[in-house]
Amino acid sequence: MSKKYVYLFSEGNASMRELLGGKGANLAEMTGLGMPVPQGFTVTTEACTRYYDDGKKIAPEIVDEIFKYISNLEEISGKKFGDDSNPMLVSVRSGARASMPGMMDTVLNLGLNDVAVEGFAKLTNNPRFAYDSYRRFIQMFSDVVMEVPKSNFERIIDEMKEARGIKLDTEFSADDLKEMIAKFKEYFKAQKGIDFPQEPKDQLIEAVTAVFRSWDNPRANYYRRMNDIPYSWGTAVNVQLMVFGNMGDDSGTGVAFTRNPSTGENKLYGEFLMNAQGEDVVAGVRTPLPMDEMKNIMPDVYDQFAATAKKLENHYKDMQDMEFTIEKGTLYMLQTRNGKRTAAAALKVACDLVEEGLIDKKQAVLSIDPKQLDALLHPQFDTAALKKAKPLGTGLPASPGAACGRVVFNAEDAVTWAEKGETIILARLETSPEDIEGMNLAAGILTVRGGMTSHAAVVARGMGRCCVAGCGDINMNEEAKEFTLGGKTIKEGDYISLDGSTGSVYGEALPTTEASISGYFETIMKWADEFRVLKIRTNADTPRDAKQAITFGAEGIGLCRTEHMFFEADRIKSMREMIVSSSLEQRKAALAKLLPIQRGDFEGIYEAMEGRPVTVRFLDPPLHEFLPTAEDDIIALAKEMNMSVEDLKAVISSLHEFNPMMGFRGCRLTVKYPEIAEMQTQAVIEAAINVQNKHPEWTIVPEIMIPLVGEVKELAYVKSVVVETADRIIKEKGSKLTYLVGTMIEIPRAAVTADEIAKEAEFFSFGTNDLTQMTFGFSRDDAGNFLDSYYETKIYENDPFARLDQVGVGKLVETAVKLGKVGRPDIKLGVCGEHGGDPSSIEFFHKVGLAYVSCSPFRVPIARLSAAQAALNFPR
Amino acid sequence: MSKKYVYLFSEGNASMRELLGGKGANLAEMTGLGMPVPQGFTVTTEACTRYYDDGKKIAPEIVDEIFKYISNLEEISGKKFGDDSNPMLVSVRSGARASMPGMMDTVLNLGLNDVAVEGFAKLTNNPRFAYDSYRRFIQMFSDVVMEVPKSNFERIIDEMKEARGIKLDTEFSADDLKEMIAKFKEYFKAQKGIDFPQEPKDQLIEAVTAVFRSWDNPRANYYRRMNDIPYSWGTAVNVQLMVFGNMGDDSGTGVAFTRNPSTGENKLYGEFLMNAQGEDVVAGVRTPLPMDEMKNIMPDVYDQFAATAKKLENHYKDMQDMEFTIEKGTLYMLQTRNGKRTAAAALKVACDLVEEGLIDKKQAVLSIDPKQLDALLHPQFDTAALKKAKPLGTGLPASPGAACGRVVFNAEDAVTWAEKGETIILARLETSPEDIEGMNLAAGILTVRGGMTSHAAVVARGMGRCCVAGCGDINMNEEAKEFTLGGKTIKEGDYISLDGSTGSVYGEALPTTEASISGYFETIMKWADEFRVLKIRTNADTPRDAKQAITFGAEGIGLCRTEHMFFEADRIKSMREMIVSSSLEQRKAALAKLLPIQRGDFEGIYEAMEGRPVTVRFLDPPLHEFLPTAEDDIIALAKEMNMSVEDLKAVISSLHEFNPMMGFRGCRLTVKYPEIAEMQTQAVIEAAINVQNKHPEWTIVPEIMIPLVGEVKELAYVKSVVVETADRIIKEKGSKLTYLVGTMIEIPRAAVTADEIAKEAEFFSFGTNDLTQMTFGFSRDDAGNFLDSYYETKIYENDPFARLDQVGVGKLVETAVKLGKVGRPDIKLGVCGEHGGDPSSIEFFHKVGLAYVSCSPFRVPIARLSAAQAALNFPR
Repeated sequence: MSKKYVYLFSEGNASMRELLGGKGANLAEMTGLGMPVPQGFTVTTEACTRYYDDGKKIAPEIVDEIFKYISNLEEISGKKFGDDSNPMLVSVRSGARASMPGMMDTVLNLGLNDVAVEGFAKLTNNPRFAYDSYRRFIQMFSDVVMEVPKSNFERIIDEMKEARGIKLDTEFSADDLKEMIAKFKEYFKAQKGIDFPQEPKDQLIEAVTAVFRSWDNPRANYYRRMNDIPYSWGTAVNVQLMVFGNMGDDSGTGVAFTRNPSTGENKLYGEFLMNAQGEDVVAGVRTPLPMDEMKNIMPDVYDQFAATAKKLENHYKDMQDMEFTIEKGTLYMLQTRNGKRTAAAALKVACDLVEEGLIDKKQAVLSIDPKQLDALLHPQFDTAALKKAKPLGTGLPASPGAACGRVVFNAEDAVTWAEKGETIILARLETSPEDIEGMNLAAGILTVRGGMTSHAAVVARGMGRCCVAGCGDINMNEEAKEFTLGGKTIKEGDYISLDGSTGSVYGEALPTTEASISGYFETIMKWADEFRVLKIRTNADTPRDAKQAITFGAEGIGLCRTEHMFFEADRIKSMREMIVSSSLEQRKAALAKLLPIQRGDFEGIYEAMEGRPVTVRFLDPPLHEFLPTAEDDIIALAKEMNMSVEDLKAVISSLHEFNPMMGFRGCRLTVKYPEIAEMQTQAVIEAAINVQNKHPEWTIVPEIMIPLVGEVKELAYVKSVVVETADRIIKEKGSKLTYLVGTMIEIPRAAVTADEIAKEAEFFSFGTNDLTQMTFGFSRDDAGNFLDSYYETKIYENDPFARLDQVGVGKLVETAVKLGKVGRPDIKLGVCGEHGGDPSSIEFFHKVGLAYVSCSPFRVPIARLSAAQAALNFPR
Repeated sequence: MSKKYVYLFSEGNASMRELLGGKGANLAEMTGLGMPVPQGFTVTTEACTRYYDDGKKIAPEIVDEIFKYISNLEEISGKKFGDDSNPMLVSVRSGARASMPGMMDTVLNLGLNDVAVEGFAKLTNNPRFAYDSYRRFIQMFSDVVMEVPKSNFERIIDEMKEARGIKLDTEFSADDLKEMIAKFKEYFKAQKGIDFPQEPKDQLIEAVTAVFRSWDNPRANYYRRMNDIPYSWGTAVNVQLMVFGNMGDDSGTGVAFTRNPSTGENKLYGEFLMNAQGEDVVAGVRTPLPMDEMKNIMPDVYDQFAATAKKLENHYKDMQDMEFTIEKGTLYMLQTRNGKRTAAAALKVACDLVEEGLIDKKQAVLSIDPKQLDALLHPQFDTAALKKAKPLGTGLPASPGAACGRVVFNAEDAVTWAEKGETIILARLETSPEDIEGMNLAAGILTVRGGMTSHAAVVARGMGRCCVAGCGDINMNEEAKEFTLGGKTIKEGDYISLDGSTGSVYGEALPTTEASISGYFETIMKWADEFRVLKIRTNADTPRDAKQAITFGAEGIGLCRTEHMFFEADRIKSMREMIVSSSLEQRKAALAKLLPIQRGDFEGIYEAMEGRPVTVRFLDPPLHEFLPTAEDDIIALAKEMNMSVEDLKAVISSLHEFNPMMGFRGCRLTVKYPEIAEMQTQAVIEAAINVQNKHPEWTIVPEIMIPLVGEVKELAYVKSVVVETADRIIKEKGSKLTYLVGTMIEIPRAAVTADEIAKEAEFFSFGTNDLTQMTFGFSRDDAGNFLDSYYETKIYENDPFARLDQVGVGKLVETAVKLGKVGRPDIKLGVCGEHGGDPSSIEFFHKVGLAYVSCSPFRVPIARLSAAQAALNFPR
C-alpha cells in the first residue's frame, strides 16, 4: 500500500492536524497524554480529497484499510461489530483542519442492527435503552446517509403516540419501541427500495462517504467562504467507540471551557446534563446544569475533569473547549480544542496567559484573530436594553455598529437637524453621491434598496458609519418624510435604532455604548506595535474621521479623497459651475470660489493630524457624478447657473459614459483641465504652510497623489503642473515647505510600467480596489449578477474585493514593487483601498515589502494587529 | 566641444539619416557622389531635441558652432553674409528622419538686408530681381519666423497696385519694389516694435529656431500621429547656398521622379518651369511643362539630369523623387529621396526592380508599405465618373472603399430589398446591434450621428463594408424613409454613392470597380508568403466574409463571433425568449430553437472554409444588448413573449449594468447558464461532423474559444461543459472528430496567470482590443472625451486601439506567451482583434513568437505583407 489513509488515535498527535483534522489530531494528542479517550481511528483528509479526485467514489484500498482498523478496534475494545452479546458501537464524525461547527454530518450508535441491538440490550441490561438507541440510529442514519429526512419518521412516532394516547417519547415501552423499529424499517424500504442496512461494515462505509459528501454541502461551502477555508482541504472522519452518558444517574455528558469564553475569566465554565447524550444537550429539552453543580453531584469526577482541563490548557497553552461524557461514573474526554471566544475574552485570556507565564507577548499577539476586533470597534447597544427590544424589521447588515438617533429623510434635513446638535439617522430609498454630507453627519444610514455593495453600504463602511441597507419591507414616502415598517409609521424626528451587525431596525431609542481602546485591548495593541514593521495609516476625508483614526492608533492619512468635499451643500454649486463652464475663464472663476473652501478643508485635516503624514488624492470621480439626474434638479440647476435647460442637458449628456469606471476620471480630468490640479495644489500647499506656521513644532510634508495613472508621461504632465504651482506659492510665501508628488498604482498598465512611472513618482500607493476591477475585468457594481454562480461553482472562494487576490492582482502588485524600486530605489510604497484593512491582505503587503497600509479608521486596530502577526510570521 | 551639432554636406552620408534627417543625409550622399549640389551644412536632430530639453532655448555653444560653419561656407562659396558686392544667400529648411512634406517651415533668400540687396543687384545685374527677392524674403521671414502673417503684407501690395492702376506683380518696377520694401519694414516695425533684422547671422539663428519650433506645431503633431513618427526624433535644419531658377530663360526649376509615381512606369516623370523659383511651381500661377519638353528646350541639361537620375536610382536602388534648379544653364540637385507612390505603382516598381536585377525579392517585399495596400482592397469609384460627380455632403471617412446602391432606412427593409437582388446602402440616424443583419447585407452604411469609433464605424470596418459616419448635415426622417442633404431629398430606393475613404456622399449612382489581387499585387503577395512565418487568419462571422477572406489569402478563421448570428430577424426572437426565461426549462426550450439555426450557420462556414481551421468564439456580449430599448419595441416584445410589459421591463432593468464592458458577459454568461455553452457546443460539433461526412477529403478540427477568462477554474468549468457535450455527441454519431478548446487572453489577470490557464487551454488567442481597454483602464467608447487632450500633450502619440501599445499591453502579451508555454509547451498562440491587421503590431506578434494573426478580411493582404517584412527584419 503506497499511502496510509487511516490512523489509530494512538498513532497520531497534535502536529498532524492537516492530515487528521483538528478533532482527530486532538483526540490523538489526548490519547498520547494518557487521558481517558474512547479509542478509535481517523480516516485522513487525503482520503477525502482522493474521494473527490476519484469522482466522488471511495477507493477499494481505502475501504480495505478502514476494515483493517475496525479489526484493530475490535481487538482494543474486546467488542465485535454486530455481535449478539458484546456489540461494538461507534460514532462517525467529521473533523476538518479548521473547526466548522455543525456544518457537516455525524452518525452515532453505528453498528446497531437487528442482532446487535439484542446484544446491546443484554450488555446494558436495559432493553428499552437499547431499542431506543436503535430507533434513533435508524433515524439518524437514514437522514444523514440515505437522504430520508428525519422528520418523516417523526410522523410515525406521532401516529403511535396518538394510538396509545401518550404525549412523551419516554412513555413508550420497550415493546412499543420494537414495533416502532419495525415500522421505521418498513418505511425505509418503501422509500429506498432496499432493506435498512444490517451489515455494520456497510453502515460504516456509507457513513464515512456521507461525511466526505457533506464537505461539499451548501452550508459548509458558505461557511468556508465566510471563514477563508479552502475547499481543497477536505475533511477527515473520526470513528470512535461509543460511550453513553445516558446509562443512568451515574452517567452524564457536558461541554466546558477552561475559562469563560464571554469574559475570559479564569474559571472552569460550561454545563452538563446527567443521564443524557450529547444530542439531549443540543435539543434543549432539559436544562443543563452549570459546571459548579458537578462538584456537588460527582466531586471525584469533577476533580478529575478539572485536573484534565488544567493539564490540557497547560499543554496547549490556550483556553480549551472540551466535550466529555461520564459513563457509569467513568470520565471520557470526547474532544478538546482551542475555545472560540468573544473578542473581549480573547484579549483578556491572552493577557492573562502572558501574566501566568504560559505564553509570551509574541504568542499573545498571534493568538488574537484580528477580524474579531471589529466587534469592539463600533458602538454597541446596551445588552439589557437590546434583550427587551423587538425589531420592526430587518435589512442587510451592511456596515457594523449600533446607532440610535432621530430620523431624517434627506441630506439637507440631516444638516439642519445636526446643526441643532441632534444625533440623526438618515433614511433613504437609496443613497447617491449627493447624500455624502448627510451620510457623514448621520450616526447611521438606512436604505430600502441596494445590497452589500450598494453606494450606501460601501460609503458607510468607508466612513465607519453603521448602515442597514436593502430593507425592502419598508414602505417609504420620502416626500411626506415618513416610512412604515412592521406596522409602525416613523416620521421625521422620531427615534429609531439600527444594528448594522445584524440588520435589525428598531422603532425606538436604544442606548448605545461607544467603542474605545483600553485595558486588555490597549495592552495587546501596545504589544502588536512593538512587533509590526508596517506603518498603519487611515483613509479619512474629514477632521472628524482623522481624529477617530488617531484614537485608534493611525500614524497618518494614506488616502484623503478630495471629491467628497465637493458634494457638500455650500460647494456643490461652485463645483457644478466649474463643470458646466464653457471656457477656461469661467472654469477658473468657479475654481477660485472652491479654492478657499478646499484650503480650509485641508487646514482642518492638517490640524487634526498634528504633523503626521497626509496623502491627498486629487479629484478622481467622473464629473457627471456631481451633476443632478432628476428633471426637477436639472431645471433648478439651470436656473441657478443662468443657462438654458437645453444647454445644461447637453452638458450632462456629453458627460454621459458607457463605462464610467473606465472613463473620463482620475488624472484624465487634470490632463484636460490642468487648472483643477492648480487649484488643488494651491489649496494643499497654502493649507500646509498656514498650519506649519501656526505649529512650528510639527513637520508638515504634503503628499500629493495623482490618481489613475497608466503612463509615465501622464504623471509627468500633471506633476509639472503641480510642481510649478507649488514651487511658485512656496517661493511667494517665503516658506521652506517640502512636499512629495506620487501616484496610485491602480491601472494594470501602471503596474507593468512601474519602473518608468517611479522615475516621476516619489511614492506609490496601491489602489487595490480599482486594480482588482481592472485586473479581473469586472466592475464591482455589476459583479453581483454573476458572482453567486462563481461561488456555487467554486471558481471563486473569496470576494476579491474583500481579500486581495494574491495570485493575479498580487502578481501585479509584486511586479510594481519590484519595478518601482528599479526606477527609484528609495520609493515610498503603501496601499490604500479596502484591502488595507484585511488581515490576509495585510500579510501579503508585509511580505512584498510595503512601508504602510491605509484603511478606514475603524479598521486601524485590526490592521495594527494583523501587521504585527505578519511581522512575527514572516520576519523581513 | 563635447558634441558635434553641425555637419557640412561633405562630412555626411546617407547612413546618417537619424542625425542629419532624410534631406540632409541625401544632400550629403549626393555631395559624396560628386553630383552638382549647392553646398551647405546641416544642424542635427540632436540640436533640436537639445533645444526642447533646454526649455525651447538654443544653446550658445550650438549658436557658436553654426557661426563657425557659416564661415566655412563663406570660404567654400567665396561669398560673404551681408556683403555689398557678393553677398551669400542661403535657404533654411527642415528635414526630419522621415519625410513630413509641408508640415514644417522653410525660409529662402536668407542673408538679404539693406546692404546685401544692393550687392545682389550688382551681382545679378538685375536690380528688379534683387528687390523682388528682398521683399519676398521679408514676407517669408516675417511669416515663418516672426509670426507676422504673410497676408498682411499682401494688403500693402494690393494698395500699391490700386494706386498705380496695375494688376500683376510683374508690372511693378524696381523702384516700386524699393518703395514696397520700405513699407514692409515700416509695417514690420509697427507690428513687432523692432526693426526688421538686418544682421544675417541673427536672421539665421532666428530661422533655425523657427524650424525647431515648427516641429511642435499642430499640423506636424497631427501628421506624426497619423504616420507613427515619434515626437522624440526632432528635426534637423539644412542651411544651403541659394541657387536661382529665376535668373532668365536659361534658368528654371522642377520636380521629377525616376518613374511614374501613379503607375510605376519606368520613365522619367515630372514637370518644370523655366525662369522660376520653387514657390512659383507650388503657387500654380504658371502651368509647368512635362519633363519631356525639357529635351527640346535644354537637351544637354536634360541629358545630364536623366543620367543623374538614373545614377541616383541605381545608387539608392529605388525610385527617386528629385528637386532641381537650373541657374544660367547649370544644373543643381536640391533634393533626392525615395519617391512616394501609389500602391499600384509601388507594386509595379518593386517587381520591375527585381526584374532589372537592382534588388532581390526580399528587398522588393520590404519596399512596400503594407498600409498602402488598403487602397487596393476595397471597391473604388470609376475615376472618370468620380471627376464629374459633386458630393451632396461629407461625413467622417469611417470605413474605406466605395459603395453605390439603393437607400434603405432600416434593417428589415435591407433584407427585403436584398432579397430582390438589389445592392443597398443602409442609412440610419445611428446604428445599434439590432442593425447587424442590415449592415451585413448593405454595400455601404451611412449614419448621421457617431464618430470614428461609433458602432457603425467599428462594425463596418470589421465587416469591410464602406461606411460614412456622423454626416451631421443630413436631415433624417427615418419614419418617412427619406433624408435631405445638400438640398436634395433622397427617398427609399433612390441611388446614392458613398466614398468611405473621403467621407463623401453622392446623390447619384457612380460605377465602382471591385478589388482583386492579381498581376504585380499577386506576385508580391506570393513572394511575401515565401518569407513569412506567421499564419494569417481572418475574423469572419459569415460564409460571405469567409469567402472574401480566402480570395485575399486567409488561411483560416481566427475569430468567428457567434453573437452577430443571433441578431438576425428570424432568431432574435428565440434569443430574447432565452434571455427573459425565468426557468431552466424555458431557457432550454428557447435554446433548442436556436440550435438548428446556429448549426446551419456553422455548416455554412465550414463549407466556405473547405477544411481550413475555424476558431468559434462562444457568446460574448452582455445579454441586454439583445433586448429592445425603445418603449414601443418593449411593448411589442412583451406581447410576443406573452408576458406583461412590467415583467419584461423588470428583466431589462435587472440586466442593466453600470459598466457593461466589465459586466455580465463572456464566459460569465456560461458559468451562470451552462446550457448556452451546451447548445453552442452541440451546434459546432454537429455542423463539423455533418460537413466532414460530406467532404471526407477535408480535415475539420473545430476550435472552440471561451471568451473573457480571468481564472483557470472558470475555464475548467466551462470546458467541462463543452467536453461533456462534445464527447457525447461524437460518440452518439460514431464520429472520429477531434476538437480543441481554448481561450481568449483579454483580461490582465489571464495574462499574469497564463501558466495556470494553459493547463486547461489548448490554445490562446489574444483579444488585444479588450486587453488594451482593461490594461489602460479606459473604455474605447468613452475615451473620446479625453484622448484629444492626450494627443495635444503628447502623452499618447498613437491610438492604442489601432496600434498595439508594446510597452504596457505588449508586456502582458509577452508574459502570457512565456507563461503559456510553461503551462503547455505546445500551446497554439494567435491574436484576433483589430491589432492583428496593423503592421507594427504584426511585427511585435512575430517577435514574441505567435503562430498566427487574425484580422478582418480586407486586411489579410496587409497582414501577409507585414508578416513577411517582420520575418525578414527579425528572423526567428
